[in-house]
Amino acid sequence: MVETIAYLGPQGTFTHEATQLLFSNKNSELVPYPTIPDVLTAVDQGVSDLAVVPVETAVGGSVNLTIDWLIHHVDVPIIGEVIYPISQCLLVHPQHANRPLQDFVRIYSHPQAIAQCQEKIDEICPQAEIIYTESTAQGATILQSNPEDLALAIGTKRAGETRNLVIKEEDIQDHQNNFTRFIAIGHKWVDFQEEQKSVKHKTSLQVTLPSDYPGALFQVLATFSWRKINLSHIESRPTKTGLGNYFFIIDAELSHEHVLMRGALAEIKALGCNVRVLGSYPSFQVNELQSLKK
Amino acid sequence: MVETIAYLGPQGTFTHEATQLLFSNKNSELVPYPTIPDVLTAVDQGVSDLAVVPVETAVGGSVNLTIDWLIHHVDVPIIGEVIYPISQCLLVHPQHANRPLQDFVRIYSHPQAIAQCQEKIDEICPQAEIIYTESTAQGATILQSNPEDLALAIGTKRAGETRNLVIKEEDIQDHQNNFTRFIAIGHKWVDFQEEQKSVKHKTSLQVTLPSDYPGALFQVLATFSWRKINLSHIESRPTKTGLGNYFFIIDAELSHEHVLMRGALAEIKALGCNVRVLGSYPSFQVNELQSLKK
Repeated sequence: MVETIAYLGPQGTFTHEATQLLFSNKNSELVPYPTIPDVLTAVDQGVSDLAVVPVETAVGGSVNLTIDWLIHHVDVPIIGEVIYPISQCLLVHPQHANRPLQDFVRIYSHPQAIAQCQEKIDEICPQAEIIYTESTAQGATILQSNPEDLALAIGTKRAGETRNLVIKEEDIQDHQNNFTRFIAIGHKWVDFQEEQKSVKHKTSLQVTLPSDYPGALFQVLATFSWRKINLSHIESRPTKTGLGNYFFIIDAELSHEHVLMRGALAEIKALGCNVRVLGSYPSFQVNELQSLKK
Repeated sequence: MVETIAYLGPQGTFTHEATQLLFSNKNSELVPYPTIPDVLTAVDQGVSDLAVVPVETAVGGSVNLTIDWLIHHVDVPIIGEVIYPISQCLLVHPQHANRPLQDFVRIYSHPQAIAQCQEKIDEICPQAEIIYTESTAQGATILQSNPEDLALAIGTKRAGETRNLVIKEEDIQDHQNNFTRFIAIGHKWVDFQEEQKSVKHKTSLQVTLPSDYPGALFQVLATFSWRKINLSHIESRPTKTGLGNYFFIIDAELSHEHVLMRGALAEIKALGCNVRVLGSYPSFQVNELQSLKK
């Protein structure tokens, strides 16, 4: 059976790369959507079987739009995670491949990519005007279709190659340890690729603390700490009902079916917290881009 | 002596209102800057004495740009906080004051204001195209200078009044409990307004946990919990050195000079955490817009 997998497009984004990596051995049709809400709504409404979106970047932190939509608008579990190294490339139209970088007047890219390469930009072409695009791939497309424009773009190697642009330089991000977390959501379980079987298992929780109970967060963390359950991520997001009212999003490194996790969840509820399991899923870390097939 | 106070402009933004509220009894010159980094840099470089920026909204959560700049780029303490009710108003050019709302084809406003009024927009003019502006005040300015444009703007009452626009409706935000937190930073202490003396005192901390010490956050919260020091806010922000490395930003409701806080901070450091005090300051909550003087 052919699955359809929605992802944050257009083609050639890092989400596209992560989606191919997660599902490359499947008989799948990958369908790009223009925004994160569109991607998540596609699977929520059954238009797609699965969806892949970014959830955290090393420089920008959490992708709040993804988390807020998972909390407030869709009810589809997280079924997998991939932690993927982002290699930003400097792209140029072949007509200008040999020009010195100080000649360029514009740089197109997504705000996150610009933020990841800020020091490099200041070093190599501080004179250039920054033009924000909706995706790194869109910046590459603009470059391709405007050969007279003295512009650069920052994006994936693949975005450059598929548009016949010249990869002027690879790995131009300021920090080499530049990973992004992507999550897959869906109503059905899937088997991920064989070679990715050595993984952690995570459970993502949305915890609402009882109001007027100072120290409730401390009690919640105590239930994990006593059991030596490691928390890889904790953050607060607004409930939107008033300033100072938060959900806590907690990623615990254990399956929700493990006896220790079942005990922790039961106790947190007994403390008066509302607990929603956003998903319990395998997490893959990709350390080498070479492991990307195709 | 005249103080100069930088704020996130242009004139007529909510930050402008909050700045006037905090410093209305001072002999101050208020200077608008176009971006949050510009405001914070002005005081960091000594161009301004003080600066006021938003730090958290009820719907969007933390203003990451403010927090990341306080962590990474400026070294100026927080000296005060005001929690201020945001009343979004529907603004219209007087030429179109009596038109039905379904006639309008565009709505101008800042993305945060649009997010705060999303249900209202869907109800009263779902057909309108949303055009994001850099500030709510900029949207009002566009409306004022284009009388032929069949457009609305969402912004402050004052932004409408000062531009001779019609206030079609007040308090159009989806949640009435719509407060925003603003902080003032500066190298010198100031006396705030007399009538605002009934306040909480807060201390904001940037805590870096020791690496490879599972449960460190739990230990940090324990040092506050045992002393019954209430934490009004806790969040994680990326260190930007790699995925999974975070600073924790913690707001504790006690002065940094209190014996309990001194004990807590000493113990957190002894646990191996790096602790930076971002400021220890009075926090004012404004419940009625009527208390806003001119």
